[in-house]
Amino acid sequence: MSEPGSSYRDAGVDLDAAERAKDRLKGLVASTRDENTLSNLGLFGGLYKVPAGVDQPVLVSSADGVGTKLKVAFMAGQHESVGQCLVNHCVNDILVQGARPMFFLDYLATGTMDETVVTEVVAGVAKACGENGCALLGGETAQMPDFYAADEYDLAGFIVGVVPRAQLLDGSAIGEGDVLIGLHSSGLHTNGYTLARRVVFDHMGLGINDEFPEVGGRVADVLLEVHRSYLKPLMPLLEAGRIHGLAHITGGGIPGNLPRVLPEGLGARVDRSSWRPPALFRVLERAGGVDHDEMYRVFNMGVGMIAVVAADAAAEVMAQLEAAGERPWILGSIEPGAGVVWDDA
Amino acid sequence: MSEPGSSYRDAGVDLDAAERAKDRLKGLVASTRDENTLSNLGLFGGLYKVPAGVDQPVLVSSADGVGTKLKVAFMAGQHESVGQCLVNHCVNDILVQGARPMFFLDYLATGTMDETVVTEVVAGVAKACGENGCALLGGETAQMPDFYAADEYDLAGFIVGVVPRAQLLDGSAIGEGDVLIGLHSSGLHTNGYTLARRVVFDHMGLGINDEFPEVGGRVADVLLEVHRSYLKPLMPLLEAGRIHGLAHITGGGIPGNLPRVLPEGLGARVDRSSWRPPALFRVLERAGGVDHDEMYRVFNMGVGMIAVVAADAAAEVMAQLEAAGERPWILGSIEPGAGVVWDDA
Repeated sequence: MSEPGSSYRDAGVDLDAAERAKDRLKGLVASTRDENTLSNLGLFGGLYKVPAGVDQPVLVSSADGVGTKLKVAFMAGQHESVGQCLVNHCVNDILVQGARPMFFLDYLATGTMDETVVTEVVAGVAKACGENGCALLGGETAQMPDFYAADEYDLAGFIVGVVPRAQLLDGSAIGEGDVLIGLHSSGLHTNGYTLARRVVFDHMGLGINDEFPEVGGRVADVLLEVHRSYLKPLMPLLEAGRIHGLAHITGGGIPGNLPRVLPEGLGARVDRSSWRPPALFRVLERAGGVDHDEMYRVFNMGVGMIAVVAADAAAEVMAQLEAAGERPWILGSIEPGAGVVWDDA
Repeated sequence: MSEPGSSYRDAGVDLDAAERAKDRLKGLVASTRDENTLSNLGLFGGLYKVPAGVDQPVLVSSADGVGTKLKVAFMAGQHESVGQCLVNHCVNDILVQGARPMFFLDYLATGTMDETVVTEVVAGVAKACGENGCALLGGETAQMPDFYAADEYDLAGFIVGVVPRAQLLDGSAIGEGDVLIGLHSSGLHTNGYTLARRVVFDHMGLGINDEFPEVGGRVADVLLEVHRSYLKPLMPLLEAGRIHGLAHITGGGIPGNLPRVLPEGLGARVDRSSWRPPALFRVLERAGGVDHDEMYRVFNMGVGMIAVVAADAAAEVMAQLEAAGERPWILGSIEPGAGVVWDDA
């Protein structure tokens, strides 16, 4: 018997489909361009001018993924949210060093190139880029059959922002007695989904389209709530020099993230009675039989961002955040030591 | 029966292992830092100063993956090569716009956090960063159990470089009569592995440790040969303004990549008799029964980079490349038209 000839398409890779998906994305991407963007998709590298008028510009960059929140997107067949989550997560990660986003690139790896799914993901990416004033400069869409399941993909993002050296947040401004101001999260953000999915789908036995008990809304919508960006409420305060430090509460929770921005010799005291975790977290803790402190090490528990400010600036910062539509509260303070001490411990 | 309590570790995520792997990587990463690098790992965002003395700096960025070359790394249990491939691929992708690399970030997603494997991958990344004068500024290591197989991972990279605006390669310098100079590839680079693996392991029935017939060497070593960087031979010519354009021959081969850098109205005539594809490509074509033109659309066929230069500069450029250790040859020229015309067609 003669061996049939091989081609790339037989082997599961459809280069033409990848090209068609790229064509459909060009309009979405173009909508995020700004005056510093010099290139379109299709070039090997994305081009971006260092913005004029930034004194001693420091580039701040971050790479991130969406984690297994993607599994929920697959179950629900909704792919725009994870694209938005990816961008907002990256925006927050450089915001905590004082930086304003300039441009973003994505990496999307799929089993087979489903143009509709790819377009939906990138639509979410482009939407969030637009909302954050960030150019979607390019990316890589990789077809990896026999690596990813046909209807699955992984998604990573890379962001570069800029901050004038004098506005860089590096922890050095943080001092004893500074106050911690909490900003609300929007759901689980992008962390803890391996545990959350186990509790929701295995322990609670819920389906993706079921009503989420006590929380309200469909399970899909609750678990796919978009990881919010904190750029708009915080940037004016950063530019005014009112912020000593910022911690984005991602994997590891408050104890895993707040100490990362504190200088040597200082720790944080956090009063967990100062806020009530939203119903979603309380249900996950109870239904999963998850240890209380473990909950705070895995999930954001309702706190997506913590700002460190001078005690005598706290009232004005709170007022400005409220004027920007936030519901901030004081959840603790900086004291000599290391790490996070729970006030209720 | 009582439901056992859940924890993140039960759910397959070991945050402590991720921390230990990060600690082991700090030394590797530190070795790539330069005078513009302001941050260590551990901060949310990586910090890099825009280098002084670059006139009208343009940032050039690219995101890429390694594709299913990773499957060969899994089979062989060798993980340093793919780390190097990832960096060199990214370096080449911004080099073709004239840029010198500044910094790099990686995204590594695994099923379970095997510290040894992660360390080996990042050792490869750090080694190639060092060789290209590129700071490894950070990255994301994500544990995604039930997403990736326990012993598998995906790997993506993100690079940012800089070029003075006047040295930017954007195709505008390319004109009719320009000459195409080919530079040799090192094996398959990072493209065509889905097809190559099918031919090698299914059609030819080879094992990962077998001798590769006609090619020589172990299958693992042949297929994991490091995707080389073209930075060192080409940067002096770029700085001297001797290069009109560069095309990195990746997925899509010469016909898919060379036209991307040509201006409207110009095409390329390529004489395929000007070089002999290395044995590896000839064996893949014959053993896989792959159509001859399809081979040139999937693989680099021995040409990793093509430089476009003025006809009257070709001799001197060739001499400089030879002095840098290359074996360049003239493989075609620029003519009115579009796309690539094979001279033998």
